[in-house]
Amino acid sequence: MRLRHKPWAGEKLGQYPQYAIADPETHKGNWAEVFGNPNPIHIEVGTGKGQFVTEMARANPDINYIGIELYDSVIITALDRLIEAELPNVKLLNVNAKDLKEYFEKGDVDRVYLNFSDPWPKNRHEKRRLTYKDFLKLYEEILVDEGEIHFKTDNQGLFEYSLQSFSHYGLLLTYLSLDLHKSEFEGNIMTEYEEKFSAKGQRIYRCEVKYRS
Amino acid sequence: MRLRHKPWAGEKLGQYPQYAIADPETHKGNWAEVFGNPNPIHIEVGTGKGQFVTEMARANPDINYIGIELYDSVIITALDRLIEAELPNVKLLNVNAKDLKEYFEKGDVDRVYLNFSDPWPKNRHEKRRLTYKDFLKLYEEILVDEGEIHFKTDNQGLFEYSLQSFSHYGLLLTYLSLDLHKSEFEGNIMTEYEEKFSAKGQRIYRCEVKYRS
Ligand SMILES: C[S@@+](CC[C@H](N)C(=O)[O-])C[C@H]1O[C@@H](n2cnc3c(N)ncnc32)[C@H](O)[C@@H]1O
Ligand SMILES: C[S@@+](CC[C@H](N)C(=O)[O-])C[C@H]1O[C@@H](n2cnc3c(N)ncnc32)[C@H](O)[C@@H]1O
Repeated sequence: MRLRHKPWAGEKLGQYPQYAIADPETHKGNWAEVFGNPNPIHIEVGTGKGQFVTEMARANPDINYIGIELYDSVIITALDRLIEAELPNVKLLNVNAKDLKEYFEKGDVDRVYLNFSDPWPKNRHEKRRLTYKDFLKLYEEILVDEGEIHFKTDNQGLFEYSLQSFSHYGLLLTYLSLDLHKSEFEGNIMTEYEEKFSAKGQRIYRCEVKYRS
Repeated sequence: MRLRHKPWAGEKLGQYPQYAIADPETHKGNWAEVFGNPNPIHIEVGTGKGQFVTEMARANPDINYIGIELYDSVIITALDRLIEAELPNVKLLNVNAKDLKEYFEKGDVDRVYLNFSDPWPKNRHEKRRLTYKDFLKLYEEILVDEGEIHFKTDNQGLFEYSLQSFSHYGLLLTYLSLDLHKSEFEGNIMTEYEEKFSAKGQRIYRCEVKYRS
C-alpha cells in the first residue's frame, strides 16, 4: 500500500476519541466500558480504510467491532467513514498488531478477522505474515477459549501458507471456501481489497478456524 | 464412471496373478514376500485405469505400488497397462477399499494416494467419500506411524470437505497447492481424470497430510 504523507492524520484521530481510541492500554480487560455494554468483541487486524468493520457493525448491532491499523494515513479514511456512519459499536485503534497484548487480555476478544492481509511472499519475510505462528499465539492470548479467526484473501500463496500454519498450530478448520463469491456463503461483507480484486476476476478464498480447548 | 459389462474381466485378472493379486488376505503383514523386497509400499485407493500407479512405479523403482479398484471392468485396463509395462514393483487389487483391513495390517502401508476420488456431493452420501472420517481411521489402521495421505482432485467441493475432514481428524497439513499445474511441484504424474479435467481448464487441487504420532 503506497502511503501519502499526511502529517495532520494523527491530529485528526486525536479529535475523535469516541471513534479512535486514544489510550487503548487503559481499557485492557475492560472494553465493555468503552462500548457501554458487554457484547462480544470482534477485531479486524489490518483494517485499512475500514469498510469491513463499518458495514459489519451496521449489520450486527449486538457485536462490538474494533478495527486495528498500523498507519494513520490509512486509518484516517476509516475515521471519516465512522464519523459519517455514527455507529456506537465500532472503534479504531491506530496501533501495531504485534503489541495486541498491551491492549487486550485473555478473553477480551471473541473473534479475529484477517482480511487481505499483506502476503509477504518471500520466505525470509514469513514472520511478518499475520498468520505466522507467533501471531497465532498472540491471538490465542487475547481470545476467549475456542475463539475463532476468520480469514479471507485473494492471494493464493498466502492462503496455502496460512492453512498449513493453522494446521501446524493445531487449529480446527471449521469453514472453507475456495471461491467465496460463487459459494453459498450468506451475508458476505466486502472489504476494499475484496472489491478491487474480485472486480479483476480474482477468486476470493475464505476460511474459519477455531482454537481447540 | 459408466461401466460396460465385461464378464470376461474377472477371468482375465485371474490369468495374471503376478499383476492382479488373487488372494490378498493371505499376504496380510507379509507384502515384502509378494514384491520380493522390503521396499516401502504406497497404495492408491480407487486406481481406475491405473495410469498413475504404473507411471509412479516406473519413476520410482524403489517403491512398491498397489492400485486398489472396486470394479473389474475398470481395473482390467490397468492390468493391460501392467502387462505392457512389465514392471516388478506394481500390483493390482480388485477389492473394496472398505475392506482394507482384511488385506493389510498396521504398518504394512507407507502412504495412501487418493486421486480424483468420487465426490459424492450430496450431504447424505458423505460417508461414501474416501476422505470421510471412517476412511481416515481405516487408513490409519494400516499405515505406518506418521503415515501420509496424498490427495488430488479437480473437485472444489470435495477438496473443501476433505481439508476440513482432515483437520477434524487431527491430521497435519504438510503440503497444499490450490493450482497444481501452475505450481512449482515437480515430478507430477497425471492420472486419467487429471488429464481429462485439466484439458478442460479445470484447476487441480493437491495436498499432503500426515498422521500425528
Ligand atoms: C492489504 S491491506 C488490507 C486492508 C483491508 N483489510 C481490506 O481488506 O481492504 C492490509 C492492511 O494491514 C495493515 N497492517 C499490516 N500489518 C499490520 C500490523 N502489524 N498491525 C496493524 N496493521 C497492519 C496494513 O497497514 C494495511 O492497511
Ligand atoms: C473418479 S475415478 C478416478 C480414477 C483414477 N484415480 C484417476 O484419477 O483417473 C474413482 C475410482 O475409484 C473407484 N472407487 C470408488 N470407491 C471405491 C472403493 N470403495 N474401493 C475401491 N475403489 C473405489 C471407482 O470405481 C473409480 O474407478
